[in-house]
Amino acid sequence: MYQLFIGNKNYSSWSLRPWLLATELDIQFEEQLVPFDEGGSWSKFRKFSPTGLVPCLVDGDTTIWDSLAITEYLYEAYPRVWPQDKRARAWARCAASEMHAGFFALRNQCSMSCGVTVALNQVDRSLQKDLDRIDELWRQGLSRFGGPFLGGQAFTAVDAFFAPVVIRLSGYQLTLSAEAMHYCERILALPGVQSWIAAALDEPWREVEHEQELLAVGAIVEDRRRG
Amino acid sequence: MYQLFIGNKNYSSWSLRPWLLATELDIQFEEQLVPFDEGGSWSKFRKFSPTGLVPCLVDGDTTIWDSLAITEYLYEAYPRVWPQDKRARAWARCAASEMHAGFFALRNQCSMSCGVTVALNQVDRSLQKDLDRIDELWRQGLSRFGGPFLGGQAFTAVDAFFAPVVIRLSGYQLTLSAEAMHYCERILALPGVQSWIAAALDEPWREVEHEQELLAVGAIVEDRRRG
Ligand SMILES: N[C@@H](CCC(=O)N[C@@H](CS)C(=O)NCC(=O)O)C(=O)O
Ligand SMILES: N[C@@H](CCC(=O)N[C@@H](CS)C(=O)NCC(=O)O)C(=O)O
Repeated sequence: MYQLFIGNKNYSSWSLRPWLLATELDIQFEEQLVPFDEGGSWSKFRKFSPTGLVPCLVDGDTTIWDSLAITEYLYEAYPRVWPQDKRARAWARCAASEMHAGFFALRNQCSMSCGVTVALNQVDRSLQKDLDRIDELWRQGLSRFGGPFLGGQAFTAVDAFFAPVVIRLSGYQLTLSAEAMHYCERILALPGVQSWIAAALDEPWREVEHEQELLAVGAIVEDRRRG
Repeated sequence: MYQLFIGNKNYSSWSLRPWLLATELDIQFEEQLVPFDEGGSWSKFRKFSPTGLVPCLVDGDTTIWDSLAITEYLYEAYPRVWPQDKRARAWARCAASEMHAGFFALRNQCSMSCGVTVALNQVDRSLQKDLDRIDELWRQGLSRFGGPFLGGQAFTAVDAFFAPVVIRLSGYQLTLSAEAMHYCERILALPGVQSWIAAALDEPWREVEHEQELLAVGAIVEDRRRG
């Protein structure tokens, strides 16, 4: 059985991607949660992941250490990982790769913390540019392939790649177009997302670096963590 | 026929990846070179690429706007894009995705300029960390799959993804292990790389932003551009 190494559910946006993908698509795996350490987890994570980063999938003697590579690895065994339609699949891979390599303002200024609501001090130009592009991308996917998911009728990897964005938008009280906000509601209602967030709220760990990232950009409005 | 939109060959490291992949694997395409504009090319590139970035592949009515997504799109039609062996393919995708989403010190401090040799002012810790990881990765691929390429006997997308790194190492006079340096020699000797660099040297364009990136990190030792 696959072993999927992930970080804290509250913080680890990259871990959420393959975890949610496998969970929503009923791909069996064993979850190996390894919490972040104060001052960096590189040497701890290095024991199973060659980059010292999570997520990391282990399949027998094969280690797959990046979320996009994990996605393509799973796709080889489970064709439902990407949309069936060729054009939708090409689009979905573009959107997921764009996420993988970009959206730095959103990723840096709105780091994921599932249990916390933050009032941002400001939405600067670079963040607004990322938000505008996400809105454009989502509306394009939804209208072109008919919804309710980005690549059409079925939840696929492109939705998993944007799930952390959905959680960030909600946590930082950011608003996009009506179509995009409805998409967010659908993603937040997925059983996999619900169960990830519930587990995040129960986690006992508070990691200083992640906590400070939040305080650097705004004020905490609510902290629902009970762990 | 595919249309491949690229930026200046001298500067555009992302454009080189799919161009070299298609060229070395004899995948036919029409090259559409659109030079960078002073002060940003977003609005010009936006006419064909939804992110305002190059590379961008157009196949009839389908636009594929990211180098990794282009790679997977080509793979669906040309299985030789990734290594044939399943384990080598998983490894190659991990390495390419790691490149796609990381190595920021190398990418920021050693921006590609095919025609120029630079003596770096310093190799800081973050750059050294990137170099160490590249060395580790290349030696792993070469020894695990037998070489002479990273995923085994054949040139595949993972080599195309690291070709800009090879050009940077040479341009910034950076040295890795002997195995890695021999790998660089093999990549630099490829007909596709030779023809890309030759065209880069003939380009008439000097773009201020790219030129300043070089001057910010070191001194120019040689400029072979004759365009
Ligand atoms: N490109 C990688 C990125 C992985 C990544 O950056 N992971 C973060 C957690 S979300 C990490 O492991 N950080 C290590 C640390 O904070 O010590 C992927 O897609 O898997
Ligand atoms: N993730 C994208 C990155 C593309 C990218 O950053 N391209 C640069 C050129 S190498 C660009 O178009 N920059 C626009 C500009 O400098 O105005 C990909 O892999 O295709």
